[in-house]
Amino acid sequence: MSTNQNAELISAQTVAKHNSRESCWIIVSGKVYDVTDFMDDHPGGSKIILKYAGMDATAEYDRIHPPDALSTHLAPEKFLGLVDPKTVVKVETQMSEEDKARAQRKSSLPPLSEILNLHDFEAIARLVMHERTWAYYSSAADDEISTRENHAAYHRVWFRPRVLRDVSTVDWSTTILGQPSSMPVYISATALGKLAHPDGELNLTRAAGNHGVIQMVPTMASFTFDEIVDAAKPGQAQFLQLYVNRDRNITKKLVQHAEKRGVKGLFVTVDTPQLGRRERDMRMRFANQEPTEAPQNTPQDRERVQKAANVVNSFIDPALNWNDIPWLQSITKMPIVLKGVQSWADAFEAYDRGLAGVVLSNHGGRQLEFARSGLEMLVEVTQHFKQKRGITFPNDKFQLFVDGGVRRATDVIKAVALGATAVGLGRPFLYASAYGQPGVERAMQILHDEFEMNMRLLGARTIKDLVPELVDASSIHAHMVAVPDDRLYNANYESMQHARLREMKSKL
Amino acid sequence: MSTNQNAELISAQTVAKHNSRESCWIIVSGKVYDVTDFMDDHPGGSKIILKYAGMDATAEYDRIHPPDALSTHLAPEKFLGLVDPKTVVKVETQMSEEDKARAQRKSSLPPLSEILNLHDFEAIARLVMHERTWAYYSSAADDEISTRENHAAYHRVWFRPRVLRDVSTVDWSTTILGQPSSMPVYISATALGKLAHPDGELNLTRAAGNHGVIQMVPTMASFTFDEIVDAAKPGQAQFLQLYVNRDRNITKKLVQHAEKRGVKGLFVTVDTPQLGRRERDMRMRFANQEPTEAPQNTPQDRERVQKAANVVNSFIDPALNWNDIPWLQSITKMPIVLKGVQSWADAFEAYDRGLAGVVLSNHGGRQLEFARSGLEMLVEVTQHFKQKRGITFPNDKFQLFVDGGVRRATDVIKAVALGATAVGLGRPFLYASAYGQPGVERAMQILHDEFEMNMRLLGARTIKDLVPELVDASSIHAHMVAVPDDRLYNANYESMQHARLREMKSKL
Amino acid sequence: MSTNQNAELISAQTVAKHNSRESCWIIVSGKVYDVTDFMDDHPGGSKIILKYAGMDATAEYDRIHPPDALSTHLAPEKFLGLVDPKTVVKVETQMSEEDKARAQRKSSLPPLSEILNLHDFEAIARLVMHERTWAYYSSAADDEISTRENHAAYHRVWFRPRVLRDVSTVDWSTTILGQPSSMPVYISATALGKLAHPDGELNLTRAAGNHGVIQMVPTMASFTFDEIVDAAKPGQAQFLQLYVNRDRNITKKLVQHAEKRGVKGLFVTVDTPQLGRRERDMRMRFANQEPTEAPQNTPQDRERVQKAANVVNSFIDPALNWNDIPWLQSITKMPIVLKGVQSWADAFEAYDRGLAGVVLSNHGGRQLEFARSGLEMLVEVTQHFKQKRGITFPNDKFQLFVDGGVRRATDVIKAVALGATAVGLGRPFLYASAYGQPGVERAMQILHDEFEMNMRLLGARTIKDLVPELVDASSIHAHMVAVPDDRLYNANYESMQHARLREMKSKL
Amino acid sequence: MSTNQNAELISAQTVAKHNSRESCWIIVSGKVYDVTDFMDDHPGGSKIILKYAGMDATAEYDRIHPPDALSTHLAPEKFLGLVDPKTVVKVETQMSEEDKARAQRKSSLPPLSEILNLHDFEAIARLVMHERTWAYYSSAADDEISTRENHAAYHRVWFRPRVLRDVSTVDWSTTILGQPSSMPVYISATALGKLAHPDGELNLTRAAGNHGVIQMVPTMASFTFDEIVDAAKPGQAQFLQLYVNRDRNITKKLVQHAEKRGVKGLFVTVDTPQLGRRERDMRMRFANQEPTEAPQNTPQDRERVQKAANVVNSFIDPALNWNDIPWLQSITKMPIVLKGVQSWADAFEAYDRGLAGVVLSNHGGRQLEFARSGLEMLVEVTQHFKQKRGITFPNDKFQLFVDGGVRRATDVIKAVALGATAVGLGRPFLYASAYGQPGVERAMQILHDEFEMNMRLLGARTIKDLVPELVDASSIHAHMVAVPDDRLYNANYESMQHARLREMKSKL
Repeated sequence: MSTNQNAELISAQTVAKHNSRESCWIIVSGKVYDVTDFMDDHPGGSKIILKYAGMDATAEYDRIHPPDALSTHLAPEKFLGLVDPKTVVKVETQMSEEDKARAQRKSSLPPLSEILNLHDFEAIARLVMHERTWAYYSSAADDEISTRENHAAYHRVWFRPRVLRDVSTVDWSTTILGQPSSMPVYISATALGKLAHPDGELNLTRAAGNHGVIQMVPTMASFTFDEIVDAAKPGQAQFLQLYVNRDRNITKKLVQHAEKRGVKGLFVTVDTPQLGRRERDMRMRFANQEPTEAPQNTPQDRERVQKAANVVNSFIDPALNWNDIPWLQSITKMPIVLKGVQSWADAFEAYDRGLAGVVLSNHGGRQLEFARSGLEMLVEVTQHFKQKRGITFPNDKFQLFVDGGVRRATDVIKAVALGATAVGLGRPFLYASAYGQPGVERAMQILHDEFEMNMRLLGARTIKDLVPELVDASSIHAHMVAVPDDRLYNANYESMQHARLREMKSKL
Repeated sequence: MSTNQNAELISAQTVAKHNSRESCWIIVSGKVYDVTDFMDDHPGGSKIILKYAGMDATAEYDRIHPPDALSTHLAPEKFLGLVDPKTVVKVETQMSEEDKARAQRKSSLPPLSEILNLHDFEAIARLVMHERTWAYYSSAADDEISTRENHAAYHRVWFRPRVLRDVSTVDWSTTILGQPSSMPVYISATALGKLAHPDGELNLTRAAGNHGVIQMVPTMASFTFDEIVDAAKPGQAQFLQLYVNRDRNITKKLVQHAEKRGVKGLFVTVDTPQLGRRERDMRMRFANQEPTEAPQNTPQDRERVQKAANVVNSFIDPALNWNDIPWLQSITKMPIVLKGVQSWADAFEAYDRGLAGVVLSNHGGRQLEFARSGLEMLVEVTQHFKQKRGITFPNDKFQLFVDGGVRRATDVIKAVALGATAVGLGRPFLYASAYGQPGVERAMQILHDEFEMNMRLLGARTIKDLVPELVDASSIHAHMVAVPDDRLYNANYESMQHARLREMKSKL
Repeated sequence: MSTNQNAELISAQTVAKHNSRESCWIIVSGKVYDVTDFMDDHPGGSKIILKYAGMDATAEYDRIHPPDALSTHLAPEKFLGLVDPKTVVKVETQMSEEDKARAQRKSSLPPLSEILNLHDFEAIARLVMHERTWAYYSSAADDEISTRENHAAYHRVWFRPRVLRDVSTVDWSTTILGQPSSMPVYISATALGKLAHPDGELNLTRAAGNHGVIQMVPTMASFTFDEIVDAAKPGQAQFLQLYVNRDRNITKKLVQHAEKRGVKGLFVTVDTPQLGRRERDMRMRFANQEPTEAPQNTPQDRERVQKAANVVNSFIDPALNWNDIPWLQSITKMPIVLKGVQSWADAFEAYDRGLAGVVLSNHGGRQLEFARSGLEMLVEVTQHFKQKRGITFPNDKFQLFVDGGVRRATDVIKAVALGATAVGLGRPFLYASAYGQPGVERAMQILHDEFEMNMRLLGARTIKDLVPELVDASSIHAHMVAVPDDRLYNANYESMQHARLREMKSKL
Repeated sequence: MSTNQNAELISAQTVAKHNSRESCWIIVSGKVYDVTDFMDDHPGGSKIILKYAGMDATAEYDRIHPPDALSTHLAPEKFLGLVDPKTVVKVETQMSEEDKARAQRKSSLPPLSEILNLHDFEAIARLVMHERTWAYYSSAADDEISTRENHAAYHRVWFRPRVLRDVSTVDWSTTILGQPSSMPVYISATALGKLAHPDGELNLTRAAGNHGVIQMVPTMASFTFDEIVDAAKPGQAQFLQLYVNRDRNITKKLVQHAEKRGVKGLFVTVDTPQLGRRERDMRMRFANQEPTEAPQNTPQDRERVQKAANVVNSFIDPALNWNDIPWLQSITKMPIVLKGVQSWADAFEAYDRGLAGVVLSNHGGRQLEFARSGLEMLVEVTQHFKQKRGITFPNDKFQLFVDGGVRRATDVIKAVALGATAVGLGRPFLYASAYGQPGVERAMQILHDEFEMNMRLLGARTIKDLVPELVDASSIHAHMVAVPDDRLYNANYESMQHARLREMKSKL
């Protein structure tokens, strides 16, 4: 595409004529692109593109995409040339009432010292993030039951702490795939980090470097892979999360480039042959449309939707299967971990094929509704390994990870006691990044403080002391739904009252 | 009755004189009927008939009944002759405030593209259906616990998905009683479809034809059996739901006529020896009465109520028993399935008598309160068949079906994994039919999309991959009711709060 | 006392001088009593007596007590003579605002035909009964957990109905202690029926007679034993509930008189060595006091409270024990049943001593908090009898009864299927009696209708068909309390929304 | 320090100049202290000290601390001399609106006779205590789940009462570590009693003396150890709760002094190697700060926080371990009990080392989140002792105690039936002390009344009758979290309604 850069300049007025679905040009970073055909393949929908048809979309584009997104996904001939900068009229964007209110809330962020736990970050992020960002990050599959179950499962596991051990110093550092980690926690891959903060994934990289935590770089980041790796400190370990492309060469190039750049582990996502339906996110889009724009469920609409799905499917190959594993093993020496394994049978398969481990995960509840929590799978998987193979965990040869629903160091400790090498946190760090890098660091500091306290309170001096006997997980498989309540009976029950102050009595 | 059609015309003024309980005539589609005696046998109550005493009831009649209802249930001599059309004064119906509000809501239906799941149809139907229609459709037995349990039971079953299988194409089509079906779902019989939409059951027939789904035609439809069969495409499979009449000849005629018209399976309802009490529906009737009309619980009232019950009992024979099965088998070659079996013992009996299968169902929770969900019965029934007979499911020789509480493709998939051949959906399609045929098609499309996604996410390429190992149903029999809460203790607990924005703090 | 009736008349003015705690006279039905000493022994408290000190208390007295209460509990010398009727000034009672509101609500009772279930009676009773009556009837021990558990336990038992049985006629009549009963239900003893309706227990007697139901006459009735027996039809069976008095002669007289009057069974209460603390009831009393009247927790107050407790203890002997059983057996030929047995060990003991049965009951949750429901005890008791003695139930030789929390015929059917001969209902009939005798009859009719329907739906032609296989009681012993909720996490979860009407969207 | 008392007087004006972080003097009880360096070590934070910089802090100091707190924790040279009383200007403290409202509520306390249970004390305390006091007392670890679970666990244990035992007299007195106690209850140690009432722990001591209850004197009391012991009656038994200091000599002196003063048992806290994070308490502090004062999360801030933690750690030694037990045994003859044991393994260890017992406790839920309730531990511990050692409880040689979440005598009875010698109550007595000593006595009287009633209702004549067969604890280990609710389904369910009064219907 660089050759075109010497071509004749295009005037903004010319671009402005191509402002319709029939012919749609946009300007991004001074370059003019014809996106007429691409529009319907745009994962974010055609509507947002049409909003900038014939205009300069740089700001909006940068808000979400890595710089190389357009050049990667557009055919070279769709780059039409450079815009004549003299002809460009600066667009005045008008803030909506909603935007103003959000900006005001943003200016009222409580100081980080008042953020006491990871829940707090989420509460604040919900107030200051764009509502579509919030919907995108927080939404999950179908009725969003699995995503909440991820957290709930931790509440079914309780501690049996030990006392009278010398815990004047406690140490919860560990190694993950051979890399030292200051805690049994890593940053799990999440897409589109820029939506939370202009520095997006870089905040995570830098905070991770300062705190000795390992970041898993997402395939679908808002920055390029190299930008994220460049942000790391010398010697800072990073992993790569991988969606295997239909075009295996693209994947091969990415993997080998990553290995060359020093990435220490490859986490291949296996739970996403197709993106999950996240209805809250979908609903949010409708809410922002004018009624007249609403799709009409015509065959034409359906085809468009289908194309959009296909584009995502070009990133993510639904045909990926066990037979691809030897090939993956052949193109890299990095330890390979399967991310999204959900049954003991597949964990056995991964073990037998010489992989480095599996992440027991339901993708944050965003894919299959009624997929079980990672923690519950962990109990089942370790039990089967023990009974059928005589193998126990944690195990350096084959490492188990879990993610989803984690908010406290106690959650992590439960998973480690039950056999996990480490636990991935995704959304919590994203929410913390609404404060930029200091927010992410504060989140890590909170975990640090919680680990220190809870290791002491459990009588665990090092991570090796986190043994299964420390927990009672006997209720983990109980999926209870109460008998529906008897509304007539309950409405008749008149609740008891406490003693009341004298003056209040007279008022009532 | 046709002979009377040449009789002298009756003037509307003459009809108008018969406007009381003592002598009550009505006009329907130009014909005059004497309904004085019938009134108390009317399943919908005498009140609605008295409202039209001496008047033209055609519009109201058509809203609910199939055209042949009156001729079927009235003695021939109650047809008095044709009304003189010149004498009929068009009745101006005045819309109530409630009707106007409903009409306005109806004009604001969201576009079908915004309907993302079957819950949405229900939410919209509740807003735009007549409140009595809503009460009739949605109400259930006693405290409505079984009806909610039907849905809740699905939440006690969770998935163990498999990964790394090539799911680029997935196929969830199946065959039901030998008939191909695009999905393991059929339209279950529900009565009085016209209440939801003027085209009533025909919407279901036509949508089913377009989507390769099988409709079970109800005995109590708003259209005649032939009208519904006529609406089907050539080759479109349909089943017939059967209430066995006290008069076995009526049943024999209906069954043999159905077989001749090409119906492919007979579903004999066995859970309704008597109609369930649906108190919400009953309450709704009182709400619409003037206080003075309220029944006084006199012996006379009680007798009237008894007669109404008897009329229904003439449709549905409480004496129906296993000894009737050979007779049923003798009058048709259609495969016979018992609808409403609820114990393994009766499933064994059905199997031993050579029937084609059973529907494990509690009739949508409308009959026996505290009847278990179909899904729970399925687990018990398959377990007993396996342990005592060595028979596993799904099984072409003897097919198991379940219905009740289904809202998602994942629900269907759970039942299929546990041994069901297919799952019946009734109310969801009714609610969708508030949008007419496009609504029903949209509902089927949603299920289609959910099946495609979830088959992929489960690693299931075809319906044969939906095996019991894919689910954990170990909590299915847990009927939990929490210990009643300690109101005094709970009222004393002051909940934790999140960090708050600075400006908000000052406001509080 | 009759001798005094010829004494000189006492003027009302004389009585009026004795209007203080130091000397307190009252007039009841024209007789003057000195209640100065008795006041602190009055189970209903001294306050209400002092309100009528020196005045005519007849109306208030009659509202609650049986006519013989005063003569039974006062020493003969406390009857001072007859009041001179010419001197009595009629007291004008002024209705409070609360009383007026209640009277208005009472005038708006819905017709009985709108009462669809026993819950409805409770909802209406709560609105029209005096708030102290409501508090007295509905309150229970401590945190009122057992009383709610009584109802909740029934929800942990579900049905396995049978189909295809000829249920054109169904019959749920039975015999209780050899007496025919139209249903497996009896009216359990409850105190102070007059509070609900002027005809108090007589409503129950008459309705029971009309419906072939057996009434258990309470020791603490608002009418005399003979008045209640006199209200019965010829041949109408009645039972007697017995609190064994410290003075065994009083008990002996009562029991033998009852037997002579034809009572068919003796239910000896064994769960009340001391009355339970019913704090809601106690709180209600404080609410009606002026602050200055509030007891000051002085030793004097405490002694007074102690005396009141003792008075109750004179009715109910805490020393009653197994050694009294032979004596009881010696004074009557009536079958003796222990009411309030709560363990299998005591049920065995009762069996071994040749008693006729036990009522498994926690006294409506009014005595020991965290006593289990009768239904749960029933499962444990029958299991122990079967395992250790090889005895099954129902069993004519030794009958098991349960009470507490029953609102539906399905509740009764569950208990019978699990081995109970019959089930006692107390509060529901009391609440129904707010409508007088027709209310109680309506309640019985509702049960009748529910039995008829549910016997059919269960495929049970007679009570003998109600076998244990019809129910799944495997969750009955589960006393679940959910893990306390994570308030911070839950507050962050933003719920999903349905599709909305178009116009509503714009409003939001 | 006494030598300085003869030094020259310091004028208040001189003191007033030292009013900053750089140089900070305060006056307490006429003495001038330099607290510049100490400030950051102050467990209550530097902010409150700076508020009184250069001023007389006596009132605020006395509100919280024992008189000897300053002399114990400040180096002798920080005492600068006596203030010249003539120069001191009385500070006028202005009541805030909040303080006035609280004072008004305090003046409206209901009479003690209206306090019917321990919940009532809590409800009232919450209204009349300073909000920071309430936050300090009531807050617990992390999400406050363990603290609520402590209470909830009791609701999973139900009774199997016995009947027909002579319970005319019942006796629930017992002995604890050889000391007679009027009930199987002791007052557990809680810190800073003065916050609730000026007489702080002395209220507890005096009430305990009057009621024959044993008080456990806390290390962190608001009064000196000797003041608390002096408040006891002759012969009144007391225990001592002990935090083992890093400086073992301090501990040795305290222990031996206590033994000399007649203390009868030593409860060594072993669950607090580090203080738990109580976020509600922390949040309350932020709420009271001006935004500008909020800590900025700078390294300097963090160091300050660290120092504060260290100061607490100087009270509580995280290195304390089993090897310290022989030393403890060597310095005292008092029976030693470990407070805060939470596993059967540690209970075995304590038994093997000849200790007198253990308190199974999670420190009121204030330390490790998801630590189990004492009651649940009790069931596990006794089961292991029985199975592995053949030892049953209660057991005079090795006594088990539990604490946490107790509000009713039934709670205590459950623990005793399951093997506990006695149960500790902390917060409930603190809340009762808002009424001063009479409040604490009322609390004890309530327990007395509840014990008497419940012993009778259980058929237990003495504490020996409280055997395991009296309870069903089979659900104690069930840690249930319901499957997350289906919001869309539930929102569609339209609840049933009761019958309504006629006039109300027309209004709706």
